[in-house]
Amino acid sequence: MAWFRNLRQLSPTTIPPPLKSTTPSFTFLLSHFSSQPMEVPPPGLSPTVPGQKPRVVVLGSGWGGCRLMKGLDTTIYDVVCVSPRNHMVFTPLLASTCVGTLEFRSVAEPIVRIQPAISREPGSYFFLANCTGINPEEHSVQCETVTDGLNTLEPRRFKISYDKLIIALGSQPLTFGIHGVKEHAFFLREVSHAQEIRRKLLLNLMLSDVPGISVQEKRRLLHCVVVGGGPTGVEFSGELYDFIIKDVSQRYAHVKDCIQVTLIEANEILSSFDARLQRYATNQLTKSGVQIVRGIVKDVKPQTIFLKDGSEIPYGLLVWSTGVGPSPFVNSLEVPKSPGGRIGIDEWLRVPSAEDVFAIGDCSGFLESTGKQILPALAQVAERQGKYLAALLNKVGKEGGARAGSAKDLDLGEPFVYKHLGSMATIGRYKALVDLRQSKAAKGLSMAGFVSWFVWRSAYLTRVISWRNRLYVAVNWATTFIFGRDISRI
Amino acid sequence: MAWFRNLRQLSPTTIPPPLKSTTPSFTFLLSHFSSQPMEVPPPGLSPTVPGQKPRVVVLGSGWGGCRLMKGLDTTIYDVVCVSPRNHMVFTPLLASTCVGTLEFRSVAEPIVRIQPAISREPGSYFFLANCTGINPEEHSVQCETVTDGLNTLEPRRFKISYDKLIIALGSQPLTFGIHGVKEHAFFLREVSHAQEIRRKLLLNLMLSDVPGISVQEKRRLLHCVVVGGGPTGVEFSGELYDFIIKDVSQRYAHVKDCIQVTLIEANEILSSFDARLQRYATNQLTKSGVQIVRGIVKDVKPQTIFLKDGSEIPYGLLVWSTGVGPSPFVNSLEVPKSPGGRIGIDEWLRVPSAEDVFAIGDCSGFLESTGKQILPALAQVAERQGKYLAALLNKVGKEGGARAGSAKDLDLGEPFVYKHLGSMATIGRYKALVDLRQSKAAKGLSMAGFVSWFVWRSAYLTRVISWRNRLYVAVNWATTFIFGRDISRI
Repeated sequence: MAWFRNLRQLSPTTIPPPLKSTTPSFTFLLSHFSSQPMEVPPPGLSPTVPGQKPRVVVLGSGWGGCRLMKGLDTTIYDVVCVSPRNHMVFTPLLASTCVGTLEFRSVAEPIVRIQPAISREPGSYFFLANCTGINPEEHSVQCETVTDGLNTLEPRRFKISYDKLIIALGSQPLTFGIHGVKEHAFFLREVSHAQEIRRKLLLNLMLSDVPGISVQEKRRLLHCVVVGGGPTGVEFSGELYDFIIKDVSQRYAHVKDCIQVTLIEANEILSSFDARLQRYATNQLTKSGVQIVRGIVKDVKPQTIFLKDGSEIPYGLLVWSTGVGPSPFVNSLEVPKSPGGRIGIDEWLRVPSAEDVFAIGDCSGFLESTGKQILPALAQVAERQGKYLAALLNKVGKEGGARAGSAKDLDLGEPFVYKHLGSMATIGRYKALVDLRQSKAAKGLSMAGFVSWFVWRSAYLTRVISWRNRLYVAVNWATTFIFGRDISRI
Repeated sequence: MAWFRNLRQLSPTTIPPPLKSTTPSFTFLLSHFSSQPMEVPPPGLSPTVPGQKPRVVVLGSGWGGCRLMKGLDTTIYDVVCVSPRNHMVFTPLLASTCVGTLEFRSVAEPIVRIQPAISREPGSYFFLANCTGINPEEHSVQCETVTDGLNTLEPRRFKISYDKLIIALGSQPLTFGIHGVKEHAFFLREVSHAQEIRRKLLLNLMLSDVPGISVQEKRRLLHCVVVGGGPTGVEFSGELYDFIIKDVSQRYAHVKDCIQVTLIEANEILSSFDARLQRYATNQLTKSGVQIVRGIVKDVKPQTIFLKDGSEIPYGLLVWSTGVGPSPFVNSLEVPKSPGGRIGIDEWLRVPSAEDVFAIGDCSGFLESTGKQILPALAQVAERQGKYLAALLNKVGKEGGARAGSAKDLDLGEPFVYKHLGSMATIGRYKALVDLRQSKAAKGLSMAGFVSWFVWRSAYLTRVISWRNRLYVAVNWATTFIFGRDISRI
């Protein structure tokens, strides 16, 4: 039992009672616990020393963080990622998963597939954890593991020292302090959200068929309300409408006349698009049967939305997509902020007050002192910043500035410049909008219709990160076309 | 507002306050609630009358119930299915979904795809509900809707009158009254179980990599224990082993030496198979590194299993598959039972004490008076019974015995005879067992190895019900082979 006593001494945690038995099965079992080579707990993530690679710590696993990790030169750096999810979500296709056009897994990309060094290199890690604090003086972050389900460990706290820290924590949905939104509405930002929306939608479809339900109650259950007319809200409405037309009418023929989609928006829908495309989208959605309601939500109760103008809207499913803002953790960080409360950064994406700390994506914004505009909270901004920063860190690393505190006098080269590539949104019925202008005022190509839809699908298919998921997205689209959407509620 | 007042009178349920507003958006919204044709609540499922088709009510959506529904002649009968899940699970492939070899949706088949009349025919329904009582005198069943998540309705009770009732409620896992099993172990019977196992496995893999975890705790977290050496337990162990060898070693290289699979069985593993195949499986699994422990579980605590011989086994994941027995609802039915507590049936699968009531699958067993052996709780038994009973009901229907109480004097034809087609089980590493003997004592082909594995895969691929899922299973297998298993924890 020497191995076991050693462990008792090594381990700082509470240890369950030792294995004890006198039967053959015990030695058999014990063989597992002792046959492996002795190990000491991982050396921990104390500051790196010569002989170790400098450590880049990435907080978050969204578009920004993942693009950065993908681009990092892992012969220079070790990569440590801290995130409550072990995959990146291909957000532009998330709306399609709610109705079964795509499978959930087709839009999720495991982080170790994006940067394989994380599982291969001895000094690179992925931790399923949340960051709970940053200490820029000490060059370290505090983290706490995520737990759920049966028999998990107590949340475990640990500290990671960094040479470079990248804050890529994203944003969270804005509710504008409206009462009841968090309790009763679904957001559409994570795969788990899409799964919940799907379960709810299918549950309502089935419940509405139960004998004795009044027509009014049936209509309420089958009234899908989307608040927010940005690309997410519009794409979700379009997908829902496709689902209703093609699948509900076949699979839920009893209730097909009672289902309805309503999109509530305070201003114009798709405000970032060309006015002509906005009109096209409005017309198409309305023609499809999606009701577009101009209004401001005042209050949300379990089965009814109250608008400022006094109207009451009964609903069965409520999806909330009115934009995003900084998370409480970002709010709590004591660093200079950009207008809008994001982490303030300079032209090289650095957090000026904290050496070796960078911020990218939705959680960051240019400081007023840079004279630059705050960039929109878009996947393409975060991705471009991640790509830029990976190149910057690789350059710094090659020039000997990879260690903590050693990049002060280096020339960082060209600052980050964002060039908008355009916007796309699908509106259902094999139609989409493509707006390739660099800004609202600029000139350039903008188009709408089937060709745009084809461009939209092709563009996203090539943007999906791994070949595996590219294959799955293509297979999903093909089977949806041939067999219809899957409606099993699992 | 005439439509609304009418609804108030028609509807027996509590009605939320009426829509009220004076703004344009109101009229717009109202148009949805009033533009559809007036409907009264569904006529309810009172006894069928001439002019309506006779009604077959099926309780359950497993192998038996689904095969029956598939075979029913829907020009003769209306079909009503009552089940808490709207899909059938292709159980033999469920173990593969836990480790990502197959996707969850590839093994789930929506019921309306199995019997499309359910969504098409005005008198056919699927209800997402549990049966709470059977009244054979009145020829009716009581049901209660399933609810979950946010804002669902209160469970709603309703009654369905039947002309023929088929009880196909399946079974539930046996825990032998062992304390802690229900709280701490996972079963492997539904897609949701496989999802939970997968989440837990991936969580443990990631938690075990957190700095400061003792080696002992790491080994505990990564110790996967399977209790029960039947086909499910063995297949799950084999799949887990494949996952460890091929994927964990690549994707979780840091912890790959700490993961271990143990299979606990009180007797021989795969006791229904040929002795030679049993030995082969034992050797192969042991060679793979799966520990097979002979022992009887006495108690299950959150992180430790206690065996009768006094040994204690720390675990991180516990899967329980020690066989199945009747559910509490089946136990509560006051009908003559077969040995083992199943619903007693005669040679034509009738419940003799209740006219027009049949029982098939795991929940039923031949009455002692028939002199027939109780059939094993296998998918192929349930499926064969479903097929037989569909043909019997179609014959009865054609001969004028479809209505409640009208089949008394009809000749039912040949009684049900079960012919065992053989058993198959995969044991990982491209190896499987195929035992084509009709019983343990009979002679016949039995084989093991790669060819068997190929037979196993081909056989199941052809058995998967829809072309859609057949395609997905094939694509899943191909991508697993090429890209490895998916490890995103969604």
